[in-house]
Amino acid sequence: MSWQTYFSENRDRFISEHLEFDRIPSISALPQHKADVRAAAEWTVARMTRAGLANAAILETAGHPATYADWLGAPGKPTLLFYGHFDVQPVDPLSLWTTPPFEPEIRDGRIYARGASDDKSGVLSLIQAIEGVLKGEGSLPVNIKLLFEGEEEIGSANLKAVLAERKAQLACDHIISVDGGQWSETDGGILVSLKGMCGGQIDVYGAATDLHSGIFGGAAANPVAALTHILAAMRDPDGKVLVDGFYDDVTPLTAAEREAMAVVPFDGEALRARLNVPELAGERDFTPIERMWARPTLDINGMWGGFQGAGGKTVLPAEAHAKITCRLVANQDPRKILECLAAHIRKVTPPGVRVEFHPSAGTAFPYSMPLDHPVNNAIKRVLTKVYGKPPYYIRMGGSVPVTGMFERELGAKVATLSFALEDEGMHAPNEFWRIASLDKSLKAYALFFHETF
Amino acid sequence: MSWQTYFSENRDRFISEHLEFDRIPSISALPQHKADVRAAAEWTVARMTRAGLANAAILETAGHPATYADWLGAPGKPTLLFYGHFDVQPVDPLSLWTTPPFEPEIRDGRIYARGASDDKSGVLSLIQAIEGVLKGEGSLPVNIKLLFEGEEEIGSANLKAVLAERKAQLACDHIISVDGGQWSETDGGILVSLKGMCGGQIDVYGAATDLHSGIFGGAAANPVAALTHILAAMRDPDGKVLVDGFYDDVTPLTAAEREAMAVVPFDGEALRARLNVPELAGERDFTPIERMWARPTLDINGMWGGFQGAGGKTVLPAEAHAKITCRLVANQDPRKILECLAAHIRKVTPPGVRVEFHPSAGTAFPYSMPLDHPVNNAIKRVLTKVYGKPPYYIRMGGSVPVTGMFERELGAKVATLSFALEDEGMHAPNEFWRIASLDKSLKAYALFFHETF
Repeated sequence: MSWQTYFSENRDRFISEHLEFDRIPSISALPQHKADVRAAAEWTVARMTRAGLANAAILETAGHPATYADWLGAPGKPTLLFYGHFDVQPVDPLSLWTTPPFEPEIRDGRIYARGASDDKSGVLSLIQAIEGVLKGEGSLPVNIKLLFEGEEEIGSANLKAVLAERKAQLACDHIISVDGGQWSETDGGILVSLKGMCGGQIDVYGAATDLHSGIFGGAAANPVAALTHILAAMRDPDGKVLVDGFYDDVTPLTAAEREAMAVVPFDGEALRARLNVPELAGERDFTPIERMWARPTLDINGMWGGFQGAGGKTVLPAEAHAKITCRLVANQDPRKILECLAAHIRKVTPPGVRVEFHPSAGTAFPYSMPLDHPVNNAIKRVLTKVYGKPPYYIRMGGSVPVTGMFERELGAKVATLSFALEDEGMHAPNEFWRIASLDKSLKAYALFFHETF
Repeated sequence: MSWQTYFSENRDRFISEHLEFDRIPSISALPQHKADVRAAAEWTVARMTRAGLANAAILETAGHPATYADWLGAPGKPTLLFYGHFDVQPVDPLSLWTTPPFEPEIRDGRIYARGASDDKSGVLSLIQAIEGVLKGEGSLPVNIKLLFEGEEEIGSANLKAVLAERKAQLACDHIISVDGGQWSETDGGILVSLKGMCGGQIDVYGAATDLHSGIFGGAAANPVAALTHILAAMRDPDGKVLVDGFYDDVTPLTAAEREAMAVVPFDGEALRARLNVPELAGERDFTPIERMWARPTLDINGMWGGFQGAGGKTVLPAEAHAKITCRLVANQDPRKILECLAAHIRKVTPPGVRVEFHPSAGTAFPYSMPLDHPVNNAIKRVLTKVYGKPPYYIRMGGSVPVTGMFERELGAKVATLSFALEDEGMHAPNEFWRIASLDKSLKAYALFFHETF
């Protein structure tokens, strides 16, 4: 049986399996979901075994577990290590979801669920594609190793130890991540750059308790107001970062790089309309696509302090908090950026409050890959067959912290082949994945296994 | 029987009644406590009737009810209208309370409960004092009317209509508020100035949903960051207000006024230590007591947007919010200040977001009273007897919106005679009232009824 026939005959089951996988609330950031992350890990182990892969197992870590499986029946052929993750982002604000995030529902050819796109789609489609070729053709034309983790959404803090301790088990010729996306429903894209990341929480403390704002308003500092000064001094109103040293190590964009981005068909007005914002915003000297793809940013992910209920409460709050993250580009070092942030916070903190900065454990170096890498050339041939035209070379503002980690620990670049699209609500309410992307994924992975590298 | 004997014989019951009154969770700001505010109103009606007052009744309003009672058996003598409130502030953060806010507990001679000090202490002590003189002496030496409301903590929005519609019923020679305090446990104070107030909520909206901060971080404005710019542009790091026009109508402090405040024994270091802050903070050109008593302020009471849970979530939030209030001094007009705030917000809002400013319904004009007003002179004689030495003339940073309203509607100044102290956690966790203040209150009110005006 051809793999095409196998996919066609098993398509309904494959779709059902995506719903089943998405039903597991594997939120790695929230302690109360620890058992669910493990359940997702066990689910992948069982599924890889059913697909015909060998050595499927949980890999314990100091945090959430990872999983592994392989098929090494093609001696003399290259060994491909595939990477993906089965953990997902938190779901709040829950009230904005049309259907509950962990009760997957198909509407208009889309699977709606937290993780449906990021990254359960990549993990499961890859396993299904392997099953199709193995069951259809009886063997794979390459050797394959799979490594999936459960901590990508919280910075992959424990993956480095997995890679370091299992260098022999994970040895490979090439590495391919299934955590990525394509340019559009009709155009492929080859990912050549990812942003790095670092961040942390700022805690500002004033008096020991909330105070009456009338009685103490002029005499004691307001921690919420102090926090607004700290944060406002971090970014100008356009979003340009004002932290001393932040841009020092950024490799300037060359004219050629700006040209390569300019040829990508990007519709700023369409993006503005889709986001429903009055205008796109950002650094004035760069185009929107340059800002999203190739400029470092500092964002406030959350901020809170004082009274948030209905009505009013005339307090001078005792404390205020903010979570921030920076997205980094070549050649920024997240450890140095964290030092710049800490120094900046010390420098701009107003009188009368205590401030603490707690860097997050997970950091990521920015990552880039040559356009003409042999794996990228293979991906280009595959995507040209899938879409009927050559792909664009694209960059992503998102971070996949493991790319640099893989390169340092296993000595191979990490290419990306995955079929998420950027409108799919990743990290936001109403995340979904297109079922049409499942058909593309299965075909692309099967073709890719038959490529030469 | 003398009123002194009556108080002494009924002291235990009076204390129990304070606990009973404090048990009613009459939070006017929260819709789910609507019935509790009414229960507190009904409690005062029943208590005033038991005290021997006539015409005790609920006064319905468009919001929470007010209550009324009188004793008019002293023809030819002055009529005193007393004012207080039986509603209380919200209680969050609940986790900081040592005992639940509506389960009153006596510890170390203090009653701990939300509202124990502000203002159930004033309302109930006054009723108890009237009962003592009435039951002890058989009559009162003056005519008395009592008006208590249930919306003071949310701006007394419906009290004006009560005053306007009941001018004859409320007609009086003098008005005395029991919502105020003394200088210390050992020193009395005559309140001669209250701050005005206005405020509202700022809502900043960006994209229709939270966005992935890596993908969209450089292209779409961050509403939380925009809010930090709006708020940071409202106050300098010392707390000086930067809103155009904010200080325009402030009557400058005279050298004599600054001198009058300078003689009040104020210990800045003790305040700093009590608040547990690294230093007092505020406008550099004024002393702490001037800033608290006689300078207008702008405070952020609460602020929130984006992810607030444990761990991280790399979103670009869809919206951000803040609640602000201004405390005003003579001769500022809260309506004009609200216009200044709205214009300022429009002026400083960064690109890429929509912003809304929703002024709160409740506003208050600042209020001041001549030091040598006949009622203040009577209060001075009373407090000199209670404390054994003359009181200070003090000002309050807090707002009692009704003072100006009473003056305009009923044509009399509002003096203040009440026994709260500023360390009693009003509007904050672990609010308490000193039982020693009950003894002072009963004596002072009884003496005051026997004064000449």
